[in-house]
Amino acid sequence: MKKIFLYISALLAGAACTAQETLLSPDGRLRLEFSLADGGRPTYTLDYKERPVILPSGMGLELRGEAPKLEFGAEIRKGEPGRPVSLYDGFTLGQVARSESDQTWRPVWGEQAEIRDRYNEMAVTLRQAATGRDMTIRFRLYDDGLGFRYEFPEQESLTYFVIGEEKTQFAMAGDHTAFWIPGDYDTQEYDYTESKLSQIRELMPGAITPNSSQTPFSPTGVQTALQMKSDDGLYINIHEAALVDYACMHLDLDDRNFIFTSHLTPDAQGWKGYMQAPCHTPWRTVTVSDDARDILASKLILNLNEPCAYDDTSWIKPVKYMGVWWEMITGKSDWAYTRDVPSVQLGVTDYARCRPSGRHGAENENVKRYIDFAAAHGFDQLLVEGWNVGWEDWFGHTKDYVFDFVTPYPDFDIAALNEYAHGKGIRLMMHHETSASVRNYERHMEAAYRLMDKYGYNSVKSGYVGDILPRGEHHYGQWMNNHYLYAVRRAADHKIMVNAHEAVRPTGLCRTYPNLIGNESARGTEYQAFGGSKPHHVTILPFTRLQGGPMDYTPGIFVMDVAEVNPGNHSHVNATLANQLALYVTMYSPLQMAADLPEHYEKYMDAFRFIEDVALDWEESRYLLAEPGDYIVVARKAKDTGEWFVGGVTDENRRTVTLPFDYLDPGKEYVATLYADAPDADYQTNPQAYVIRTGKVRQRTELDVEMARGGGFAISIREATDADRKLCKLK
Amino acid sequence: MKKIFLYISALLAGAACTAQETLLSPDGRLRLEFSLADGGRPTYTLDYKERPVILPSGMGLELRGEAPKLEFGAEIRKGEPGRPVSLYDGFTLGQVARSESDQTWRPVWGEQAEIRDRYNEMAVTLRQAATGRDMTIRFRLYDDGLGFRYEFPEQESLTYFVIGEEKTQFAMAGDHTAFWIPGDYDTQEYDYTESKLSQIRELMPGAITPNSSQTPFSPTGVQTALQMKSDDGLYINIHEAALVDYACMHLDLDDRNFIFTSHLTPDAQGWKGYMQAPCHTPWRTVTVSDDARDILASKLILNLNEPCAYDDTSWIKPVKYMGVWWEMITGKSDWAYTRDVPSVQLGVTDYARCRPSGRHGAENENVKRYIDFAAAHGFDQLLVEGWNVGWEDWFGHTKDYVFDFVTPYPDFDIAALNEYAHGKGIRLMMHHETSASVRNYERHMEAAYRLMDKYGYNSVKSGYVGDILPRGEHHYGQWMNNHYLYAVRRAADHKIMVNAHEAVRPTGLCRTYPNLIGNESARGTEYQAFGGSKPHHVTILPFTRLQGGPMDYTPGIFVMDVAEVNPGNHSHVNATLANQLALYVTMYSPLQMAADLPEHYEKYMDAFRFIEDVALDWEESRYLLAEPGDYIVVARKAKDTGEWFVGGVTDENRRTVTLPFDYLDPGKEYVATLYADAPDADYQTNPQAYVIRTGKVRQRTELDVEMARGGGFAISIREATDADRKLCKLK
Repeated sequence: MKKIFLYISALLAGAACTAQETLLSPDGRLRLEFSLADGGRPTYTLDYKERPVILPSGMGLELRGEAPKLEFGAEIRKGEPGRPVSLYDGFTLGQVARSESDQTWRPVWGEQAEIRDRYNEMAVTLRQAATGRDMTIRFRLYDDGLGFRYEFPEQESLTYFVIGEEKTQFAMAGDHTAFWIPGDYDTQEYDYTESKLSQIRELMPGAITPNSSQTPFSPTGVQTALQMKSDDGLYINIHEAALVDYACMHLDLDDRNFIFTSHLTPDAQGWKGYMQAPCHTPWRTVTVSDDARDILASKLILNLNEPCAYDDTSWIKPVKYMGVWWEMITGKSDWAYTRDVPSVQLGVTDYARCRPSGRHGAENENVKRYIDFAAAHGFDQLLVEGWNVGWEDWFGHTKDYVFDFVTPYPDFDIAALNEYAHGKGIRLMMHHETSASVRNYERHMEAAYRLMDKYGYNSVKSGYVGDILPRGEHHYGQWMNNHYLYAVRRAADHKIMVNAHEAVRPTGLCRTYPNLIGNESARGTEYQAFGGSKPHHVTILPFTRLQGGPMDYTPGIFVMDVAEVNPGNHSHVNATLANQLALYVTMYSPLQMAADLPEHYEKYMDAFRFIEDVALDWEESRYLLAEPGDYIVVARKAKDTGEWFVGGVTDENRRTVTLPFDYLDPGKEYVATLYADAPDADYQTNPQAYVIRTGKVRQRTELDVEMARGGGFAISIREATDADRKLCKLK
Repeated sequence: MKKIFLYISALLAGAACTAQETLLSPDGRLRLEFSLADGGRPTYTLDYKERPVILPSGMGLELRGEAPKLEFGAEIRKGEPGRPVSLYDGFTLGQVARSESDQTWRPVWGEQAEIRDRYNEMAVTLRQAATGRDMTIRFRLYDDGLGFRYEFPEQESLTYFVIGEEKTQFAMAGDHTAFWIPGDYDTQEYDYTESKLSQIRELMPGAITPNSSQTPFSPTGVQTALQMKSDDGLYINIHEAALVDYACMHLDLDDRNFIFTSHLTPDAQGWKGYMQAPCHTPWRTVTVSDDARDILASKLILNLNEPCAYDDTSWIKPVKYMGVWWEMITGKSDWAYTRDVPSVQLGVTDYARCRPSGRHGAENENVKRYIDFAAAHGFDQLLVEGWNVGWEDWFGHTKDYVFDFVTPYPDFDIAALNEYAHGKGIRLMMHHETSASVRNYERHMEAAYRLMDKYGYNSVKSGYVGDILPRGEHHYGQWMNNHYLYAVRRAADHKIMVNAHEAVRPTGLCRTYPNLIGNESARGTEYQAFGGSKPHHVTILPFTRLQGGPMDYTPGIFVMDVAEVNPGNHSHVNATLANQLALYVTMYSPLQMAADLPEHYEKYMDAFRFIEDVALDWEESRYLLAEPGDYIVVARKAKDTGEWFVGGVTDENRRTVTLPFDYLDPGKEYVATLYADAPDADYQTNPQAYVIRTGKVRQRTELDVEMARGGGFAISIREATDADRKLCKLK
């Protein structure tokens, strides 16, 4: 569609501070007010259907003090503490530029084939008279929310600058219910807490569970995407979009006044960002609706990202995969090849002389067993972790040269196994655990990608477990955010898709770089083997973590007592089997794993059928029912086949939902297969109890489906054929 | 020669703390005593001819607290402050292993063709009963000094550890005279101060002159190599050897008791080193003699380094070069191409649309002019700085993506200029200024080296001006030391020689990695255009900076008033022209630059002849006269031709030296050409006044040569031929 620009420039240089600028969403329901408060402080409010979403909230940044202009060889003074640091007050209003835009674009992969990007825009240029600095705040108002960012035009008085802190406020209108995890510079792998804003402080200590690298920063600090619900039923979600060359934003809560203030991830020196004008911050986003389903369906984050940066995207494909993985996660087998060497020095340690422990997961015959199963059941790829030397002491030592990413263990025949896999029509998936030693990874990256080219890998799961090297940097600081994108872009040079774990949480960058097909950046299924996650987790993640992009959640666990895999591990997977199936639909991702062991799937082949059938890429998606922390039901239409798949999950409460089928074509008859919790199913006591029923449905069908505690259901729907004529109506 | 090992193991487990172990140098003049003092504290003393060099001094390290053993997915506790951190007391004596070694090796390039490596060794293993930790201190005693290091064998109770500080003491026997520069984590580019140890504190503020990146750490902190002289005439030099994967050591002085303690360069978090046993520290060295010339002639630092790491070294050659450089250093021309763009964004800034400033040094025709001159006068290479995009804002902004190292400016035709140079028998020398943005450099390094391969470059001058990125790291910390060596090793993969400026000061690594043909790591000639250096500077550098390896000092300035190059620059080069010639001999380096402009050399072609003639690689070197801070005279015999070259420099005092020629072959007649200060020469008032005299010399010749204030002399000597029969004796 054409983009229509409509500029209404109002030059108000030196205007009174009471100047107020209003912006409405295309449907008129969202109303943004911008003004300069006392002292020339930029301030905004946001209303939805005349109900307050954001009360008057300050905007701007605090600088470290711009570096003075220097000449090489000239005398240099550091610090310059006297220089003004405020970019949050002392402003007068300059030009206000308005425009409208309405375009439609087609993602390389996604929840729907076409995405409409329609907004009204207002760019307010502010002049700080005392410093001669200009700053523009650009607002984009969509029907489902607001995005705004700070822009720094090229100018004499502000070129290179260091951010001390961003001072964006989000003042809530009340003591909302929030679904939050602790703010942390290094991990998002926390269980969610549902509480009032006023309860965050008291609940924080219990919410901070141990992690291999973690740096909480405040007793009321929380992460984005933060989902809230007001007492009067407004769903408000705060996040950011297009996080590029900037630190990840957290939210620090003033819990007396319910005002969140942005808190950026610092670098090793405590500073928050290094900027060079012309430049801008990421978008700060507020998604809002009185219907929770609108939050899940929102494409605001993607829309605020730049279009695809690649000319050719034909090499980017959704991936359904299995992995030599759960057996290590549960502790049944090892990533490491040997237990002979307590300390590895790559290039020195001679693995040929080490005794294999007999517990190595990435061992030729074992890998072949997985290849056989995955190929037989239509998977695209098989992830193999622990294939490369160095796993004996990879963890917890902040070890610089920890992996080389190219040398296989003696019992992993990389050439033969890839050939074997290719012979069966699947690929191996590469694994690059960096142990957060990032310089080391970048040093080996090109050789690592070339090795992938050589053996026919086209996707890599990367990992950043542990404290970052360079030491003092954090997982979510500008330094690392730059790295993650570097890895994705260099991978694109090799037509490689990336699924980065422990990286910064996504902010829609997969629109621009669609070879970023997955991220972890939240508490994934692995924690079910580390003591378990809360059942409501999967009813919250689509409202929070998934707002920015797909998650490699690695669902599909069928055997819930981990002790059946490793007798020493007493973890329990807090889900029913039907719930695990539902996740392939409720947790949208173009990358989906069947995470359990082949021998477990062999026990439940009728249920496994759903994992085989479910699509990865969608023509359209319909969120049917949703309440954060309680339940989510979504129906999706597969891009190629036109088949529909429905998934539903609940929290720790049993509940029955009434499913509509109104998204089906009228007049057509369909065959639906329902995978549901059995009446006696329960995530704790009877998780593997499920029923499978096949029957006919039509557009006007309504179906009651019961979900067990921690349960769910999945449905596959195809058009009926003559062969189905004897089928009854689905019950 | 064969290496003879003679083990005398004395197993003294649980021996009394008064145990004392003695080690003598091969000639018996140096005597090391090791003992465990009260509390099991390792202690050593060193005597030279029964005069104390090091009074009882403690040894050891303080740890941060060894990281606890963790399992992936297990609960983690940070800090572990309760764990013992001492590796400096609580020891008992274990095995004492003694050996002798006498070998000779041939450096790829150097001051002499063969180097004798003869020492007596004692390795003392210490057991810390309370922790179960073992540490070995290995001492090597040479006739000219001591080396010792800490070794950490593979052991259960000490595998991965973090160094809080190294606690090696060097207790001086008196208030020696020292030639020192301020201890600093980021620069050595200071003028030397000559003072008593007791005066360092009061002189420190004046000694810390501005630099583009500097971090002094103590009012009595100084750098190594530190040259001292005792009141009774002992020359003592403290440095280190084989600095690999460890932080650079500084010395912090207790100026009441004249005790130096090691002070390592911290990382961004304040920690000093990350170790994985088995491993060891660099060698700590104490060179000592009652003859200053022995310090200059010492090969102790090289001997303590590992043998050459490369099988093939045929590609490593000494280099005499000129450069498109002094014109930028003086401010006559620019590194940058344009003055149109105040702020460059590589890949965005369009240089094709920028107006050239007309001041760009690396411009095709200007470069050709240098090529013509350099080729006509027998140089090997021509350095061109400012050839690549990004110089408009490279300095002082801690800019991440500051250079790409592969894109030439529009007026630098990289293909044509290399072809032009090769057609005249010389090469261009690559320049990689990193602006200390080290991640960015490593990201582009492989492509940068490949570009060099493509166009026939075989050497690179690299630079690290400004504060380090990753921010918070220092030029001399473990992180950066790892980088410098990485750059050298990756260069070797491409058969490229490296000359790194602003890198850590050398510690003899050029023995192991002889493609490291130069470093700056001290105040070089450039400072003569930034306000000047002290005349005594060049009489100290060989005692200090050059102890660890060659310096790219860039001598050969013939026009001392910088205003003649750039009227706006009133700096004066504090040297006579003859002094500048002498530096090619007194400042040993396989890499020598003629730093001045071709048009300046054209004015003094008779003097320039010496620069053309002087050799770069030596069969032998004889230090004839030396006193730190006063004068140095050295004679060297060229490796291929057998010609001798003599250089002498003085400080700010005029002095006459009587030169022996006893290194010449008896019975042979030689022709010597003397380039000396004219009688009225003076570095301040008349620096270009020189005389050139040619005459005959023999082994028994003695020649008085007068050096002006800030002056010097140079002599070239070749065997006489029949054509010389009419020549008179040199006077």
